Amino acid sequence: MSLKRRVFVVGAGMTRFHHKMHSGKSGRELFVEAALEAFSNVDKGIDRKDVEGVFTGYFTPTYYEHQGHIGPLVVDWAGLDNVMGWRTESACASSSAALITGVLAIASGLFDVVMVGGVEKMTELPTEKVTDALSVAADDDYEIPAGVTFPGQFALIAQVYFKKYGVSWEQLQSIPIKNHRNGKLNPKAQFQEEIIDRARKIGRERGLNFRDELDFLKSDYNRVVAWPLRLFDCSPISDGASATILASDEKCRDFTDTPIEVAGFGFATDTISLHDRTNYTSFKASVEAGKQAYKMAGVKPRDIDIAEVHDCFSIAEAIAIEDLGFFNRGEGVKASEEGRTAIKGEKPVNTSGGLKCKGHPVGATGTAMVYEVWKQLRGEAGPRQVQNAETGLTHNLGGSGASCSVIIFKR
Amino acid sequence: MSLKRRVFVVGAGMTRFHHKMHSGKSGRELFVEAALEAFSNVDKGIDRKDVEGVFTGYFTPTYYEHQGHIGPLVVDWAGLDNVMGWRTESACASSSAALITGVLAIASGLFDVVMVGGVEKMTELPTEKVTDALSVAADDDYEIPAGVTFPGQFALIAQVYFKKYGVSWEQLQSIPIKNHRNGKLNPKAQFQEEIIDRARKIGRERGLNFRDELDFLKSDYNRVVAWPLRLFDCSPISDGASATILASDEKCRDFTDTPIEVAGFGFATDTISLHDRTNYTSFKASVEAGKQAYKMAGVKPRDIDIAEVHDCFSIAEAIAIEDLGFFNRGEGVKASEEGRTAIKGEKPVNTSGGLKCKGHPVGATGTAMVYEVWKQLRGEAGPRQVQNAETGLTHNLGGSGASCSVIIFKR
Repeated sequence: MSLKRRVFVVGAGMTRFHHKMHSGKSGRELFVEAALEAFSNVDKGIDRKDVEGVFTGYFTPTYYEHQGHIGPLVVDWAGLDNVMGWRTESACASSSAALITGVLAIASGLFDVVMVGGVEKMTELPTEKVTDALSVAADDDYEIPAGVTFPGQFALIAQVYFKKYGVSWEQLQSIPIKNHRNGKLNPKAQFQEEIIDRARKIGRERGLNFRDELDFLKSDYNRVVAWPLRLFDCSPISDGASATILASDEKCRDFTDTPIEVAGFGFATDTISLHDRTNYTSFKASVEAGKQAYKMAGVKPRDIDIAEVHDCFSIAEAIAIEDLGFFNRGEGVKASEEGRTAIKGEKPVNTSGGLKCKGHPVGATGTAMVYEVWKQLRGEAGPRQVQNAETGLTHNLGGSGASCSVIIFKR
Repeated sequence: MSLKRRVFVVGAGMTRFHHKMHSGKSGRELFVEAALEAFSNVDKGIDRKDVEGVFTGYFTPTYYEHQGHIGPLVVDWAGLDNVMGWRTESACASSSAALITGVLAIASGLFDVVMVGGVEKMTELPTEKVTDALSVAADDDYEIPAGVTFPGQFALIAQVYFKKYGVSWEQLQSIPIKNHRNGKLNPKAQFQEEIIDRARKIGRERGLNFRDELDFLKSDYNRVVAWPLRLFDCSPISDGASATILASDEKCRDFTDTPIEVAGFGFATDTISLHDRTNYTSFKASVEAGKQAYKMAGVKPRDIDIAEVHDCFSIAEAIAIEDLGFFNRGEGVKASEEGRTAIKGEKPVNTSGGLKCKGHPVGATGTAMVYEVWKQLRGEAGPRQVQNAETGLTHNLGGSGASCSVIIFKR
């Protein structure tokens, strides 16, 4: 498993992720916004005609926009013409699949320049219909008829994790608290506030005085979604798009003096139904995709300077940082509590704010993680910059772990 | 655009395409049927564990089965484990996109053995809902609200073609007549009868005497769908799946002594809306994808011994065989009338029966075309065998030509 040709990121863009501000815009328009930023972020400029392929992740466009055939649609709207392009779908990992497709197109020798990205326009539907659209990432023959939604699945996982490792829900809150702290520093994030800011605001409005973040998170203002998970354990419903421009070893320096290498990647699958698994506190697809990526990149977990991981629910971040080998089993939550995953910690995780605070427009999430890693490895992450970040990782889970991609980038 | 590594087909399988016989089976079950045949068709046998990736085309599973996340689902059900895999979507060209993804995965050096395929389980929904599901291949912002469906789009195209080239609807019937003649010889085809067989059957039942095929096709028993296209100008609604096993240059002879090379391919996009095009009697994406494929394979249109082309409507086959350079502009229908595209003609087209007679389970169509070409190039097509076929081509259109793949295979 070694590629015939090296591949580099030479530009990236994303819309702000949000639940209201993109009202009235279509998915294709959001994609164009992200693509235009990606083009404009190419240091030495790029001619759109250089792009030979466009691969786009979008999980359920048919539900949100009564629209399929996304591949040619975004090619046309992005002002490109006559290029190869289609949609990739692997639930929440859809645009990571697009990115790997783009990498393969270049590594195979077929192309020199490719755009990959993703989009999801979720907020035009009422919440219950969004829940329905998301549910098709689970098994409709076995899981959905039993009433299991994703908050329910991750709630089960959290309960097993708590019992197995003697961890409490209160301790788990260190993860969303940290991610909101980071997201406040990210102009692309859906929520640009810390949880304590929200607590104070609600306190003022209702004449209440929350002692601290946990006091607020334990209150009725943080309602239970699926026990033990509450609202702030869950990523929001969001609109957004993201795009990344890839180039070959030979061409990348035509576009930038600081290309970021796609040094390794893995993508693995597992049973779609939870009931077919033997372990609820680890995702086999994450572990396997991680192994493949580390091997291809020739690095170890300790070499990763920053990571964007799939915190669709708070518990998922704890499991991800264990599955990726950053921390021992059962110590992910403790590591967060101790600040080891904070921007200034030894292993900064989700400096962007993560899915929880940055938002989670499903199809856009994979390449939005790449956007953050690209910014960080170029030293352009502003107030949330991690010093001397040279190696970054994105971890993108589909559904409750039936698919997972891990991609490693090097400066 | 030359690949770093050669890629070969070492096995292929497909379900029968049908509108009734798969009732009660799910898409995943159909995929498994096709995958099992593909495994069993590998001459020297194959261990399922050899498969490192599975890429699957399925256009609108959310409508037909309330199911997404098809990638890991079919991996699991096909008895594979822990492999890379996701869904590709480009409307009716979805599984050709899967095939190209698989080719890139091998050509890049990542993998040695990959399964690609497609599925569509269309018949559980009432026809008007199928029409709705298919409509998302068109532009929902501009075309669908205006009431344009695909029969309507191809009817417009047929009218322009007739006027431009002085061709009549009666002449066009040579295409479905030929395709039913071929499909009668294909045990995988949805309809295993010639149109004259159907005319005689209906004649017996109703006490009518149709003089010939055209007499029947002009009768009310062949109802108008969208003027000038009638029922027998249109491909049917079908259930089905298809799968192809690809292997690298180095590994393919472990599996067979007669590997079939994927010698070249192209995939191009165009505007999704018809109103943005300047030419209705040619699909730019077909022409461009063909050019790319011919160039990569180092062959000319005259070198193609057999072709499976996208006859979603009769007029589409006429345009395809012109776009691919087999016949001059405006001469596609005439060539069919003269029998030049028949099994014993100089350029056999749709020996399988084509979409019209074989059936068109959208996501399965691309790799089902590959199945026919693979059979023909191995000399295993039985009564529909084309003698000495050495080079074959598949042409797979998405929607009304917003995407198109052309793939060339060599014995």
